[in-house]
Amino acid sequence: MLPKTRDKRSGIVTLITDFGLQAEYAGAMKGAVLTVNPRCQIVDITHQIPPQDRLRASFVLQNSYAYYPEGTVHLVVVDPGVGTDRRPLILEKRGHFFVGPDNGVFTGVLSFPGKCRGYEITRQEFFRKPLSSTFHGRDLFAPVAGHLSLGVPPSKFGLPILDYKRIEWPQPKIENKRWVSQILWADPFGNLIINISRNAHGPRLAEERWVIRGHGWKIENLSETYGDVEPGRPLALFGSSGWLELAVNQNRAQEVLKLKPGDPLFIQFKK
Amino acid sequence: MLPKTRDKRSGIVTLITDFGLQAEYAGAMKGAVLTVNPRCQIVDITHQIPPQDRLRASFVLQNSYAYYPEGTVHLVVVDPGVGTDRRPLILEKRGHFFVGPDNGVFTGVLSFPGKCRGYEITRQEFFRKPLSSTFHGRDLFAPVAGHLSLGVPPSKFGLPILDYKRIEWPQPKIENKRWVSQILWADPFGNLIINISRNAHGPRLAEERWVIRGHGWKIENLSETYGDVEPGRPLALFGSSGWLELAVNQNRAQEVLKLKPGDPLFIQFKK
Amino acid sequence: MLPKTRDKRSGIVTLITDFGLQAEYAGAMKGAVLTVNPRCQIVDITHQIPPQDRLRASFVLQNSYAYYPEGTVHLVVVDPGVGTDRRPLILEKRGHFFVGPDNGVFTGVLSFPGKCRGYEITRQEFFRKPLSSTFHGRDLFAPVAGHLSLGVPPSKFGLPILDYKRIEWPQPKIENKRWVSQILWADPFGNLIINISRNAHGPRLAEERWVIRGHGWKIENLSETYGDVEPGRPLALFGSSGWLELAVNQNRAQEVLKLKPGDPLFIQFKK
Repeated sequence: MLPKTRDKRSGIVTLITDFGLQAEYAGAMKGAVLTVNPRCQIVDITHQIPPQDRLRASFVLQNSYAYYPEGTVHLVVVDPGVGTDRRPLILEKRGHFFVGPDNGVFTGVLSFPGKCRGYEITRQEFFRKPLSSTFHGRDLFAPVAGHLSLGVPPSKFGLPILDYKRIEWPQPKIENKRWVSQILWADPFGNLIINISRNAHGPRLAEERWVIRGHGWKIENLSETYGDVEPGRPLALFGSSGWLELAVNQNRAQEVLKLKPGDPLFIQFKK
Repeated sequence: MLPKTRDKRSGIVTLITDFGLQAEYAGAMKGAVLTVNPRCQIVDITHQIPPQDRLRASFVLQNSYAYYPEGTVHLVVVDPGVGTDRRPLILEKRGHFFVGPDNGVFTGVLSFPGKCRGYEITRQEFFRKPLSSTFHGRDLFAPVAGHLSLGVPPSKFGLPILDYKRIEWPQPKIENKRWVSQILWADPFGNLIINISRNAHGPRLAEERWVIRGHGWKIENLSETYGDVEPGRPLALFGSSGWLELAVNQNRAQEVLKLKPGDPLFIQFKK
Repeated sequence: MLPKTRDKRSGIVTLITDFGLQAEYAGAMKGAVLTVNPRCQIVDITHQIPPQDRLRASFVLQNSYAYYPEGTVHLVVVDPGVGTDRRPLILEKRGHFFVGPDNGVFTGVLSFPGKCRGYEITRQEFFRKPLSSTFHGRDLFAPVAGHLSLGVPPSKFGLPILDYKRIEWPQPKIENKRWVSQILWADPFGNLIINISRNAHGPRLAEERWVIRGHGWKIENLSETYGDVEPGRPLALFGSSGWLELAVNQNRAQEVLKLKPGDPLFIQFKK
């Protein structure tokens, strides 16, 4: 049912930025994509990444890109080093195209299994002129995304590279009897997202006995959904993007459990 | 001027959610629609419904859907009961298609006159696999919306139902000499939206004499627009969606009149 | 690479409003455009203009429209005078189409060089019926934008006018030895945008010696990008939209320099 575009492009360009929604920045960047390819569909994933938070951008991207059709171009502009020598980058992986600064925003996507091809963007004929020193999102990445969405192969934009920059991911400390994990952030419902993934750590949590204790509460098993416990009671489950999540049925875990992003979370094994 | 698509679909899918704009949730859900129908146009109505506020979702939907072309699919995901036994629902009414949980978010649309057909969504071949227990917006409702936008008839997704869940709407108390109404919410301009509709109650307000009194102000007739009174003076009018509205010309009624959502509002008739 | 549509329309309609993201207003207005032209692509520039701030709307528009392909329709609805005798307006300039109230929101666009044609919108057959007195965005401007995007010539909507309303722009006070400029606003990164434009004032700043002094800091030359100074140090540069900008490398100038929108900023020349 995918439309026939050349080179299997979906005609869709997604956006993840820290531009907020008040300034002209997101709007100008969208225009710069559409000037190259007026027929592509621009889809906002978010412009509300906290300013310059590359880790959050990486996290949102890795949790969302795969729900788009193959051949989609994902434009990620969280770019504190704009105008310095950080490299502009195209990645091709799992049938998707990623465009943005080589500053770690693609760390999550790079961590997935699968062959990856990367290119440093150097071919200036694809840039807007004059190229602003402070807004490569609009003048460099957007037109490149537009051309990618038209079917221009990534290799046309520059030479292959392999040494992508990655940012440090807050890994849980996995001990025999205890895991020291961390609350990554609170979602809009107050659910607390933990740096424990179903793929890496789900089996042990499912098979062994453990407890997470707080002030006046404890959680001792995995739930499937929020309604598995009584209203007002806390629970743990692997959320929709595959991360461990603390929640409270019909309430906000962040407030009820008095925990916040950055706090450690101890998972104590019983045997 | 409407394009000819099969089965009179407009090719447009609108979104109303409480996902906010920071997480990946809205972006992932949009992708799940586009994976099924990469050619549809996704239109955000709002992702800023207060968390789990089904009444507000119902209100925003009933005030906006009719401005879209017939054949549009309206996807409404405010879903506190996700993963429980609340039913997933398709409604077809007035030439529009509505998709979301059967938890009252369609109360406003159901209240309009007109024939309505409803179906419980049960046919799992339309879902994403694996189906998340906590995010039916992405894995169930979005792909169903995508298929609806392609022209799949609603009856293909499950069996007809009639006993839709409705939520209680805060009805005004209509007495002979006095109406006890309620401030539903304040819009972004500080205008106060009241649970009095032009259709139901407009004629009596237009024909009789009445007064709304506050601390140091009163309103005694209906205005047509904000500029009908002096700057800084309060007024009442039926707003653009057909609801009674208190406003202050060139100022914010919420602050000037010291009223807030949930407050009662008394309309006293004079004869 | 631009698609061939009749009358050189791009098929894109952009939106700038002060409707916020919670109410149904933006969603209803988008629907009203799509009901006329279901095939156009609606692009949000922003709905976060501060309520009724025509100056900000003008500023965002002038900094963004030119990045869109020619033949784009820019719909700007910041309309405190809705329902009064302010005129509805279409402008055609530099290959773009602008629709909105004649209340100064187009001041920035009008200030650019180039031939401009303007029309007062009077032909009611293009409006939604009944026309709301309080929401011309939905019932008047949106359908007009939809018809413009389909290729209807601006002259079909009413008679030409020339006496557009402009709002006062906060001009810097340019003296021989000192400029008294003003901080217009702070962008989402805390950068302070100043009412000094590269076109008008860049040459003198580039050629002469000058200083901007604050409490414990001074800036004495123009940078090219944020990384030109040490982390934590302040700098001045012409930003991506051509306005002078105070920034702090890897920090928020607004907080570090303790300056805010509306504050004066003195540029002292040395010779």
